[in-house]
Amino acid sequence: MIDSEKSIGIFDSGIGGLTVANAVLRELPNENLIYFGDTAHLPYGDKSPETIQFFSKTIGEFLLFKDCKLIIIACNTASSVAYELLQEMAIDKAIVVDVINPVVDYTINKGFKKVGIIGTQGTINTGAYQKKINEKNPNIDVVSLATPLLAPMIESGFSNGQISKLVIEEYLKNPMFIGIDALILGCTHYPLIKKEVEEFFHNNKIEILATNEIIGQHVKKIIEEKNLNRKGSGGKHKFYVSDYTENFAKATKLFYGESVDLVKLQITKE
Amino acid sequence: MIDSEKSIGIFDSGIGGLTVANAVLRELPNENLIYFGDTAHLPYGDKSPETIQFFSKTIGEFLLFKDCKLIIIACNTASSVAYELLQEMAIDKAIVVDVINPVVDYTINKGFKKVGIIGTQGTINTGAYQKKINEKNPNIDVVSLATPLLAPMIESGFSNGQISKLVIEEYLKNPMFIGIDALILGCTHYPLIKKEVEEFFHNNKIEILATNEIIGQHVKKIIEEKNLNRKGSGGKHKFYVSDYTENFAKATKLFYGESVDLVKLQITKE
Repeated sequence: MIDSEKSIGIFDSGIGGLTVANAVLRELPNENLIYFGDTAHLPYGDKSPETIQFFSKTIGEFLLFKDCKLIIIACNTASSVAYELLQEMAIDKAIVVDVINPVVDYTINKGFKKVGIIGTQGTINTGAYQKKINEKNPNIDVVSLATPLLAPMIESGFSNGQISKLVIEEYLKNPMFIGIDALILGCTHYPLIKKEVEEFFHNNKIEILATNEIIGQHVKKIIEEKNLNRKGSGGKHKFYVSDYTENFAKATKLFYGESVDLVKLQITKE
Repeated sequence: MIDSEKSIGIFDSGIGGLTVANAVLRELPNENLIYFGDTAHLPYGDKSPETIQFFSKTIGEFLLFKDCKLIIIACNTASSVAYELLQEMAIDKAIVVDVINPVVDYTINKGFKKVGIIGTQGTINTGAYQKKINEKNPNIDVVSLATPLLAPMIESGFSNGQISKLVIEEYLKNPMFIGIDALILGCTHYPLIKKEVEEFFHNNKIEILATNEIIGQHVKKIIEEKNLNRKGSGGKHKFYVSDYTENFAKATKLFYGESVDLVKLQITKE
């Protein structure tokens, strides 16, 4: 029996997962939230599955210790290698949500025929979205492209301008995307350029899937179905990072919509 | 007494240091070269000095074991925290060259009055160039700007086009650079955009300092002064990386000018 007064925990390799935190709190404004950004070890995309599983397990233990009723893995790489592991760890204590499966289910349920995916090199290399979509429906044509400059571009503050417009065009004009019904933005940074991607496809009826919004709606549905809504109004929100720099602090505003206080917390041994 | 038939060793956190390798071999085409890219641990910019010293020491031991007569630390971060350490290790066995001091000396000797520096966030945060220049000549006005999008932009292949032109403009139009006599390109990736930076300043007499070229000339001078030139013609060149991916292999062409065979070699314990 999970206690509804407990918190929602979210973790990511960095602060990109704050877009997910923001979307979840938009849907569930009364929940307590604990965010952990493993900034000392980012990026996860470059590391071996064993190493990422080790980091994820340590963070999962911390979030369970902090009494989370639901844990969101807001990182594509960790989602693809540590979801089952965290589910086993959290069994009976917390619900675990990753950022890939809910997007895959949304895609299947919407009945899209051809779906595009963009993400970091690491995410595209794993093929996680593509495999999961085609396991459930082999008739969906899935095309994917690594768009490695998008995350650093967004982090460096180059969104909603001429540079981002050109970079987005350069990637999305790829002929592989001709005929898609939907484009999955497979990186927690990309919600910040959702509008620009929509503008690129402006004459077409293509749905742009921002994973943070889908995760927000998915978590709200689970919380309501299982009667786990926190009773009080408002909610406490704590944000931890494993390494603090001014840059991370500045970037919180970019990803969360407002500045947040980052607290440095070392939970893993080097 | 150092044996002139031995190799020149070069290491970097990744493959950006291949621009240095290329410049050194242009100056000294008959030398044997051993390159080590610590791709399993990149980027160094995010890591603590102790961790980078540990990695540098391990790589230094490997290069000494491989009989290098001269070791180039082709990484700004490692240069700023591990130069003295490697000098102590290599004493009597090899000469150690970093990528900061020769550029600082060049800047001082040229008599520039105002110098700009661009580099990654990590390099600019250390203030290494600025401190060293002003220690030797406090009258030089030094201004520095972190240009975090340039390295990922170059790695993603966006050089010599409209996007790189706009990104370079966006950074270099910063008023801090008004009146500079020279701009130090403080990152091993930036030689690939030297021409574009020169074009941005086309009406001005500003010298653009590509560190790889300065290091190449500096190493040639040392080798000749100490009579350490290898006697044979041609030379064997070996390229090792601690983690091999297709992307690294592809990018060698970008940084080295031609594709090279990368050999994966694990020399550190996790």
